[in-house]
Amino acid sequence: MPKDLDPRFDPIIDRRGTHCMKWDLMEPLYGVSPDDGLAMWVADMDFRPPDCVLQSVRDLTDHGVIGYFGNDGPYRDAIRWWMQERHGWEVDRDAIFTTHGLVNGTALCVDTWTAPGDGVALFTPVYHAFAKVIKANGRRIVECELAYDGTRYTPDFEAWDQVIEREGPKMAILCSPHNPNGRVWTKAELEGFAALAQRHDLILVSDEIHHDLVFPGHTHIPMSRVMDADRLVMMTAPTKTFNIAGAHSGNVIVEDEGLRTAFAQRMLGLGLSPNSFGLHMTTAAYSPEGAEWVDALVGYLDGNRRLFDEGVNAIPGLRSVPLEATYLSWVDFSGTGMERAEFTKRVEKDARLAVNHGPTFGKGGDAFLRFNIATPRSNVEAAVDRLSRAFGDLQ
Amino acid sequence: MPKDLDPRFDPIIDRRGTHCMKWDLMEPLYGVSPDDGLAMWVADMDFRPPDCVLQSVRDLTDHGVIGYFGNDGPYRDAIRWWMQERHGWEVDRDAIFTTHGLVNGTALCVDTWTAPGDGVALFTPVYHAFAKVIKANGRRIVECELAYDGTRYTPDFEAWDQVIEREGPKMAILCSPHNPNGRVWTKAELEGFAALAQRHDLILVSDEIHHDLVFPGHTHIPMSRVMDADRLVMMTAPTKTFNIAGAHSGNVIVEDEGLRTAFAQRMLGLGLSPNSFGLHMTTAAYSPEGAEWVDALVGYLDGNRRLFDEGVNAIPGLRSVPLEATYLSWVDFSGTGMERAEFTKRVEKDARLAVNHGPTFGKGGDAFLRFNIATPRSNVEAAVDRLSRAFGDLQ
Repeated sequence: MPKDLDPRFDPIIDRRGTHCMKWDLMEPLYGVSPDDGLAMWVADMDFRPPDCVLQSVRDLTDHGVIGYFGNDGPYRDAIRWWMQERHGWEVDRDAIFTTHGLVNGTALCVDTWTAPGDGVALFTPVYHAFAKVIKANGRRIVECELAYDGTRYTPDFEAWDQVIEREGPKMAILCSPHNPNGRVWTKAELEGFAALAQRHDLILVSDEIHHDLVFPGHTHIPMSRVMDADRLVMMTAPTKTFNIAGAHSGNVIVEDEGLRTAFAQRMLGLGLSPNSFGLHMTTAAYSPEGAEWVDALVGYLDGNRRLFDEGVNAIPGLRSVPLEATYLSWVDFSGTGMERAEFTKRVEKDARLAVNHGPTFGKGGDAFLRFNIATPRSNVEAAVDRLSRAFGDLQ
Repeated sequence: MPKDLDPRFDPIIDRRGTHCMKWDLMEPLYGVSPDDGLAMWVADMDFRPPDCVLQSVRDLTDHGVIGYFGNDGPYRDAIRWWMQERHGWEVDRDAIFTTHGLVNGTALCVDTWTAPGDGVALFTPVYHAFAKVIKANGRRIVECELAYDGTRYTPDFEAWDQVIEREGPKMAILCSPHNPNGRVWTKAELEGFAALAQRHDLILVSDEIHHDLVFPGHTHIPMSRVMDADRLVMMTAPTKTFNIAGAHSGNVIVEDEGLRTAFAQRMLGLGLSPNSFGLHMTTAAYSPEGAEWVDALVGYLDGNRRLFDEGVNAIPGLRSVPLEATYLSWVDFSGTGMERAEFTKRVEKDARLAVNHGPTFGKGGDAFLRFNIATPRSNVEAAVDRLSRAFGDLQ
């Protein structure tokens, strides 16, 4: 599909030997050699960020004095501009906290608003770090399993009412858009989550880190436009959108003043203040130049997902859950009738692809693997080709 | 003193308009305009770091993909090399944690090993962020005031035994070398602190962030070479030494395995992992090239302190406490017989110098101001000249 090709995303950038987790750890964790394997696990992209972002760092090194950061007005303004311009969401400048990425953001929410032993509800299968943070804090994971009809995931509020009634969590963490099932929740679904939180007196933490990576035909709605602020905590970040995970910079946005006071106190108590690189890069990213780049990126990823889905769904027994957002393709291997060990072995040993294992995402993930398709088109083509051959006997 | 001049440190780099806290906040906080004032408060330097450090960031932007950080072996090795080479301290690679600077490091220690309501001992006057973090966590500050004979600060263990006996703190935070009194504690004094911790069953957190900035005639001894690991937590950072505070990267080094397990669990629970910039810059800094630069820096700062001390001590009523380490000069105004408001006004309004106020450092700081002399020699000259004129009526 030549019309999709883009010089910003096509070049293969060798990340081996650059202290890149995705390539450094693929062999120890998955037994896939970086020499001939493809890294399709960790959720970062194999692309450079837009030049305005890199330039903001070059400006820092050109000036050269990298001391304590001062005036963050332009930084807050950039965030507000982006949320208004791209998401129709008006953000109060005082509501914005900067955390060391959103795993830290999630952890701070758990730490601030729950106590040891409390339950925290997750809508599974879901991003694995949520569970890790909940457990590490001595809280209980309350799994609310999403309904899955073989192609699409939907909320199951009636079933969850019973689980939540029984387990009594104090908080729920929503992933919107959802990782790994790729759903962009509809307004009605978001209203359902809001009502669930209301009904059970839960604080709802809405992790919207993938909000910019939404494919044509779908519209992301910020939870703050659907529910009242009094039990809502929003989380966003430029790191996924602009591929700057290394900056470890994210935003917890707390619009309710009571919740905000508690969160500010926790940030102060933990002595957390942001690194300058994240602040400069974020300010540069949330800009018209950044927006133009994201539009091009989403177009490119859309081409990748179509290619990937077409290729994977042509393999009997494999089904790629349609992505409405994110670059993380959730592939169902249950149709192969194989044990997990067998289909995983074929992907890792035969196709030489390092991918995330389904069970780490919680209940309902056993028959799945997650593939990161934010890589040059030629890598996606190679991955599809390798999968076709690895499962060739099913043809 | 032409022999001290160094092209690495002499040029005045304009930091105004670069999101620099030191210049951005001097007017709102101290009423000193950046147009004609000098910023001598926040503890960063007006110098560029060594080129190897800036080059490590340029290499990142040249490659351009700033994703999740992988193999941190070379980073740990660089830290270990530096501590061995520069401080005769052998560090276990698994003992090293990377926090978001040492305010965060201190906060994590307080959070991990004390409970709300517990006391934490400080040896005052001392770095103000310790008290801020202790209070924000709902712990009690137990002030152990250092003895001061008018020129030099020393421990007062006998008096502290009574304070600690009465207040029952669980932890003590030592600043070694000390900020703001500039002491490099002797081996005997460090043994005294160690014995105090042992006697009262305290965990001792030793903040050694200034360990590389020690003047000729003094030798810093890491606390880990003096006391057993079982109640000791070490803190170091490349940020003060190499002037990269914006990287927000520090190390908490926990040699005892029991303490280490608890700290690791807290880091995990708070979802803290380091940003890539800090990791790359630290690896580059802790190197022979970095060492050569630090030696030159200390020589330059030594010239600054001599010039500053000579100028300040020539003003009747002012006394600059002799710096054995750090670039933070602690000036005693008690000899002027003035009220605090008066000498502060003269420094701020007449001399137009933004400096830290003594009382923020705790008990014993009332008659003092802290001056940051890590700035080009010509700025130190200007500061001395301005002070001489502002207090000219005392001549």
